[in-house]
Amino acid sequence: MDITSYMNQVGQQARAASRAMARADTATRNRALLLIADAVQRDAALLRAANQQDLSAARDAGLAPAMIDRLTLSDAAIDTMVAGLRQIAELADPIGEITNLKFRPSGIQVGQMRVPLGVIGIIYEARPNVTVDAAGLCIKSGNATILRGGSEAIHCNRALAKIVAEGLAGAGLPEHGVQVVDTTDRAAVGALITMPQYVDVIVPRGGKGLIARLMQEATVPMIKHLDGICHVYIDGAADIEKALPIAFNAKTHRYGTCNTMETLLVARSIAPRVLPELAKLYATKEVELRADDEARTILQGYPHLVAATEEDWSTEYLAPILAVKIVADMDEAMDHINTYSSKHTDAIVTENYSDALRFLREVDSASVMVNASTRFADGFEYGLGAEIGISNDKLHARGPVGLEGLTSLKYVVLGHGEVRK
Amino acid sequence: MDITSYMNQVGQQARAASRAMARADTATRNRALLLIADAVQRDAALLRAANQQDLSAARDAGLAPAMIDRLTLSDAAIDTMVAGLRQIAELADPIGEITNLKFRPSGIQVGQMRVPLGVIGIIYEARPNVTVDAAGLCIKSGNATILRGGSEAIHCNRALAKIVAEGLAGAGLPEHGVQVVDTTDRAAVGALITMPQYVDVIVPRGGKGLIARLMQEATVPMIKHLDGICHVYIDGAADIEKALPIAFNAKTHRYGTCNTMETLLVARSIAPRVLPELAKLYATKEVELRADDEARTILQGYPHLVAATEEDWSTEYLAPILAVKIVADMDEAMDHINTYSSKHTDAIVTENYSDALRFLREVDSASVMVNASTRFADGFEYGLGAEIGISNDKLHARGPVGLEGLTSLKYVVLGHGEVRK
Repeated sequence: MDITSYMNQVGQQARAASRAMARADTATRNRALLLIADAVQRDAALLRAANQQDLSAARDAGLAPAMIDRLTLSDAAIDTMVAGLRQIAELADPIGEITNLKFRPSGIQVGQMRVPLGVIGIIYEARPNVTVDAAGLCIKSGNATILRGGSEAIHCNRALAKIVAEGLAGAGLPEHGVQVVDTTDRAAVGALITMPQYVDVIVPRGGKGLIARLMQEATVPMIKHLDGICHVYIDGAADIEKALPIAFNAKTHRYGTCNTMETLLVARSIAPRVLPELAKLYATKEVELRADDEARTILQGYPHLVAATEEDWSTEYLAPILAVKIVADMDEAMDHINTYSSKHTDAIVTENYSDALRFLREVDSASVMVNASTRFADGFEYGLGAEIGISNDKLHARGPVGLEGLTSLKYVVLGHGEVRK
Repeated sequence: MDITSYMNQVGQQARAASRAMARADTATRNRALLLIADAVQRDAALLRAANQQDLSAARDAGLAPAMIDRLTLSDAAIDTMVAGLRQIAELADPIGEITNLKFRPSGIQVGQMRVPLGVIGIIYEARPNVTVDAAGLCIKSGNATILRGGSEAIHCNRALAKIVAEGLAGAGLPEHGVQVVDTTDRAAVGALITMPQYVDVIVPRGGKGLIARLMQEATVPMIKHLDGICHVYIDGAADIEKALPIAFNAKTHRYGTCNTMETLLVARSIAPRVLPELAKLYATKEVELRADDEARTILQGYPHLVAATEEDWSTEYLAPILAVKIVADMDEAMDHINTYSSKHTDAIVTENYSDALRFLREVDSASVMVNASTRFADGFEYGLGAEIGISNDKLHARGPVGLEGLTSLKYVVLGHGEVRK
């Protein structure tokens, strides 16, 4: 197969389909989602069989157990897919809403209409449920979609592609409204991220390695974040009753998520009171503390204590490891955060009103929090209804990205025959 | 001078200054704007002398009269600069506003705060007033700025840079809050558009040639449009009393602007009535009509009639020339527009309610209008208070871009000790 011409064809078909997807009304798009949900449920056995093919190939290829785990399509995963599609159907339609429609002195009325971006490319690894999840969000937002899943899930993704196509056809939507790239050749990814004429935005879902590779080559804009080096700063004016559960939850609620705290900053004045108490909590989870000299003096005797190096301040552990640093005050904490943070999510614990306002304003991250766990940085917790991804970029979408991230605002002008004077 | 290391230094200084610019309060930023306005007024003679140096060099170099014209800093241009700065000072401060702050079921309050992007790079040609205009908008929006004007205006831009620096210092803002690149070496532009670590967005202000060159190399996102191939479609259900002034105004109000109509589409059913009347109007301005066969039959006898070629449908004339095409109906018009439009501004003239709604929804352009001249696509006409530029892109800003285009929304979370369950 000539990958370049194949991907060009996929791109052209997506662009052509995007107009019909964009003008489809709310009921039609929701009908497609519900038909797909029904078909996933109906074909559950067939999907599991396809997944078995992928799993046995993966075992033959000696894939790591974690990868096998993510590749597995359990009954529960299928139920979640079905429920997810039905939830997406119930979300408010973001498309077509006109806001701020106002009369201007010239007599024209000017407002902004929310419209689909056009064509969304999704690049992801292993987990086959992303195929249906991402397709659902793109259909809901009136976009055409090109899905490029991991080669290890190709059989399952093919089976899902058939189901999605059936749902689109049943609702009268174009067959190329959702396309699953049907090749395991890596060149397909290279093509997908370099055709801005056909693809409006790429959403990569995968590890830092995948995203760093894509960033180097992509000419299509991406909604992405590279890593999550999140901080909690316990201020001298913190309420210790709040600081302890927040610092414990932000580190240990889940280790592998991008909104997990990786560095704890503690004001010098409060460190002798807060660190020993925190150590008792972290000890229950055997969290390794990589602490600077001053913090190590306070923490001495802690069973998992290591001296921090410069590298620790910019490491995303995704593990029961935490960097700990003592700072003089909030200014030093903000300097540290604005230097080492990946601009994902950073929090302060304080009861000082003026400092809370300053921290919110001056920390340059996608999510800035006062007296809450960084783990709240999430589309569902923020009330977005769905999460496409998280963006650390400042343009377009920033922070957790919901359906709106797959849309754009265009100006609409309602005139009555006006001309420019 | 080593351009790479010079530009790196400029970038580092801008990034460092951006924090102080971002945290400066409304009064401080407005004070800087008013101090700069005062100093421009005070130093008018000095600025004109610097401009004379540029003008005589330009004449020696044999620059085109149009270029000389744009380079000239007249008394009126200086007054406009001063008035512009004072107007910017009076605009509402976009920074710090928190919207949609809502309680979530977890107990946290989530909202979005408007914040500066950080560092803005402005690349422009000839006109020295852009230096002060762009600096003013960036100061107002709390950004640090790197200005790269045309080499032909270097003396005037240096004088303006001194004035801006004086104003920043007077208000207690960092001296590197606004930097004027002090070299005429073209490599400085190449460096500026490829340092995403220091520059958050580039706003190019200049002709299509400049922007096309920048697009090929830039790794920093740009707020830009390449060209304005704008359409007016006169529907079969149009009110001719509206169609005539709109089609005349959209073409002839100004020829050189990006929101000027370049192609007129007319429904077959109404063409015999509307085209001869329009021809009478266009004849008064000697507008050349490049028409398809069918339109030429109707227009026969028009003194400036030429046969349209395929190329005409995608040409931005910026001149008293108009492409004219007869279409069967609105669907054919929308097909033509979605194929040839530069996605800048397109308008329909119709009294049909349902078709007006469909046109607004289905035409994929930054501004879509009903019964109004395309010439209204403008930041001031839309009520944005100021215009940084116009964007044909769908991400971040789309259409006329005001101060908000130089800002970003971050999430703020106000907690009360909440942790994730």
